[in-house]
Parts: sequence; C-alpha cells; structure tokens
Amino acid sequence: MPTVLKLGGSVVTRKDGVEQVAVARLERAAGIIGRFHGRDGDAAGAADVDAADLVVVHGGGSFGHPNAERRGVTTSEGTHDAAAVRDIHDPMRELNRLVVGALSEAGVPAVQVAPLSAGHRVDGEFRQPVDAVAALLAEGFIPVLHGDVVATAGGGVTVVSGDELVTTLATGLDADRVGLCSDVPGVLDAGGAVVDRIERFEDVADALGGSEATDVTGGMAAKVRTLLELGAPASVFDLDGLSAFLDGGSPGTWIDST
Amino acid sequence: MPTVLKLGGSVVTRKDGVEQVAVARLERAAGIIGRFHGRDGDAAGAADVDAADLVVVHGGGSFGHPNAERRGVTTSEGTHDAAAVRDIHDPMRELNRLVVGALSEAGVPAVQVAPLSAGHRVDGEFRQPVDAVAALLAEGFIPVLHGDVVATAGGGVTVVSGDELVTTLATGLDADRVGLCSDVPGVLDAGGAVVDRIERFEDVADALGGSEATDVTGGMAAKVRTLLELGAPASVFDLDGLSAFLDGGSPGTWIDST
Repeated sequence: MPTVLKLGGSVVTRKDGVEQVAVARLERAAGIIGRFHGRDGDAAGAADVDAADLVVVHGGGSFGHPNAERRGVTTSEGTHDAAAVRDIHDPMRELNRLVVGALSEAGVPAVQVAPLSAGHRVDGEFRQPVDAVAALLAEGFIPVLHGDVVATAGGGVTVVSGDELVTTLATGLDADRVGLCSDVPGVLDAGGAVVDRIERFEDVADALGGSEATDVTGGMAAKVRTLLELGAPASVFDLDGLSAFLDGGSPGTWIDST
Repeated sequence: MPTVLKLGGSVVTRKDGVEQVAVARLERAAGIIGRFHGRDGDAAGAADVDAADLVVVHGGGSFGHPNAERRGVTTSEGTHDAAAVRDIHDPMRELNRLVVGALSEAGVPAVQVAPLSAGHRVDGEFRQPVDAVAALLAEGFIPVLHGDVVATAGGGVTVVSGDELVTTLATGLDADRVGLCSDVPGVLDAGGAVVDRIERFEDVADALGGSEATDVTGGMAAKVRTLLELGAPASVFDLDGLSAFLDGGSPGTWIDST
C-alpha cells in the first residue's frame, strides 16, 4: 500500500517572492526522497516500507495563493472565466514541472499529474478517480500532483488544496501512511512544543484554540480533524523529519485514531 | 450531447519543422471555432447544435511523433524510463498550451486536459474516466485534450493517440457527432475523389486497399473501421469543411453505420 507525502507550499516555494521556487529546500527534499527511492529492493531498509510506492503532492505557495486570491477563487468560491482558470492553473503546472524536475535530478522517476485533468467537485466534496495514479504507481513511477483548480458542479471552477488531494488519494489508494511536510516541526501545543501523538481531537482542542481559533491555528485544527478521520496514520513534520518519516519512523506529531 | 472534434497534428503543427506550430492554420481553426462558440444561445443557428457542448482533441504532429519515435515508444511499445515519459509529455503539454491559447484568443473558454493525468491502458485498450471532462463541459468550458503518454498495465508508459482519445470520449460522453479535421478533404477513393458517405467498410474496402494496404491508406482503413463502430456519426474533412461541420452539416466524408 502506498505512502502519500505532501510537501507544503512553504517547503517548495519562497513566500517572499512571486512564483519563486525555494531552490535549496526543494533540492534538499528531492535529495532525501531520491536516497530513499534508491534503496528500493534493498532488504537492509525498513522491511515494511516500499520505496517504489510513493505518491507526492505539493502545495501552491507563492505560485498558487496570490493568483487564486487576485481572481477571487477559493475551494468554495468558483469562477466561470476560462482566463482565470488558466491564470491559476498555468503557474501551478509550471511549479509542478520544476518539482518533478528536481525529483528527477535526484533519481526519482517522477511524473506530472494535474488534478484539473482528472478530478472535479460535487456538493463541496473533491473527487478524483485514482485509475491513472494507481496505474503509474504499479509501473514503478512516482506520481506528483499539485494544488490546482477543478470543475465544480454548479460553481464553475474552484481551488482544490493539497490537503484535499492528500485525503482523496489516501482514501482512493488505501494508503498505508500519510506524511505532511511543512515549515513547522509538528502540531504545536499552547507553549509552542511539538505534540508527540494525537489520538482524539480533544487531546489538542485547547492548544489549537477550538472553534474560536484564528486563521492560522484554525487551519491546523481543521487539518488535525481531517487527518484523524483518514483511516491511515499521519505524521506532521518539517524537512528535518522527512528522512525519518520515509524510513518508517514517526517524526514530529503522529496522528492516528485507528 | 457533446460534439467531439479532433484537430489533426497536420492542422496544428508544421511537419517541416521540429515543434513548430502551424500558426496560420491554428488561428484559422480557432477563429472558426470561436465564431461558432460565439453563437451559443442564438436560435438562428442550427437548432440541434449546442455551441457550448464541444470537446476538442488535437494530435501531436511535429511535437509528438519525433520524440516518441526517438524514444521507441508507440501505442503498444512502452517505456519504464521516467525521463522518456517527460521527453514525450512535456512538448505535448506545450503544444496543448499553445492550442488552448489560440482558442482563448478567439473567445473560446478552452481548458487544458492531459490524458497522462486521467487515463491508462489495460490489455491494449485505452481507458479514461470522463468525470473531469464532463464536469468542465457542464460548467460551460471547452476541454482540450491532446495525444499523450499514459501508464500501461505491465508495459510502463505507452502513447495514446488522438484517435484513441476521440473514441474514448465519444463513448464515455455519449457524443452526438464526431469530426476529424485533418489535411485531407475526406476519405478518398482509388481515383482520389472524396467518398461522400460510408455505411459499411465493404463500401470502400477496395479503394482503401483492404488488408494489403500501405501504411498511409492502412491508417485510413483502420480509422474508417473504428469510426464505423463508434455508435455516433463521424465526418472526415479538412479546414475548408470545419465551419460546415460545426454548423451541423456533413462536409467531406460522412461515416455512419447506425
């Protein structure tokens, strides 16, 4: 069963620029994934981790959010303007090409997959048949998807987030494990320390601010809720934890209600 | 029910160059489709033709065939080399971006759709769930697909041709009509004249050379056989016939066994 790994927009892009790749961070991530993939078939590695069975999702960062915001398009607010669709989609495709290029340089057999071509949204829910992704995996390729825009019944085209893709892929592919690599080392408690393990939302409701949360912590609260419902264990970590995660370890915060 | 229109590689690219768009032909085709689309909702048009319900597929021409040939990849011969996949896929995505750009300039709400992201091949047969394409159509966009490479069970990645996409889309979307616009004015008989109508393969078997056909006429023989099995009428025509086809007419050769 595959592992789904998300590289956050904060990992692959620079927030202080417009459509600028974070070259050093991207190359570091690609190098770690490349070393992991190069171990494929090596019995000395963690026995239950299959290096070939990895799906990568990345966020939009400075290639995605500014364009979507300028066009007023979110996961719930859509557009029927085809020019707006291209304005948001094209830079994300370009970022995806650069991420795939970096992975390729590191020896990873990465292949671009665009959610706009395969998915759609109905009643607020993102759906994507995983046929193509599963077929690529079965042939030894590493599919690399990106936050994107998708056709939305009754609403034109809306944004699909990297987190939504992670959920859809983990469910559709019956993933073993999910990893969210961002610029924070894990889910933080009220004192700023990494929470080791979350099995119920109540464990961290106070620390995450519950329903009165600000945008930022509200984002993490929603993320934790979603990950608890996944049916597969998830880890939240930063680049320092990526190698340990791929090796089968649990860096950062381990989230598992199963 | 939608119309599926294929613009052959010979329409959108120059065969005498490497990865060169046939600018004048592409702009002419886009202009015709744009004028057709601009009539959407105009009751003066052909009553049974819905301008919004159009899916466009284009071939690879000089962006597709040379790269696939160099890598030894066909619809039946695959590769497991991710670099080869990108070498064939990336130029096709670029051609697709240029075709979508020309359509957009002509006022068509065109959106890129990549078969690599959505389709795969099993036992020689190309399959693509049409969810995303149908959802884009329903929201008033014109999906534009391209000949591509796709994951192939047991065979790595193989080429998917524009003609295969036409068949899969026509079936999956229950298309009304199919149009193949290329550089020939229709199916030609032995004397070089356009055959008006084909209802059974036997009507043209002699003219097309039957099973002893050369590559070129063999290509057309196979195409006619496939179109006869579609379940929807198909027209084969050149750019001079595109306007008439979109208006609901039957330029070139009309192929219909239904």
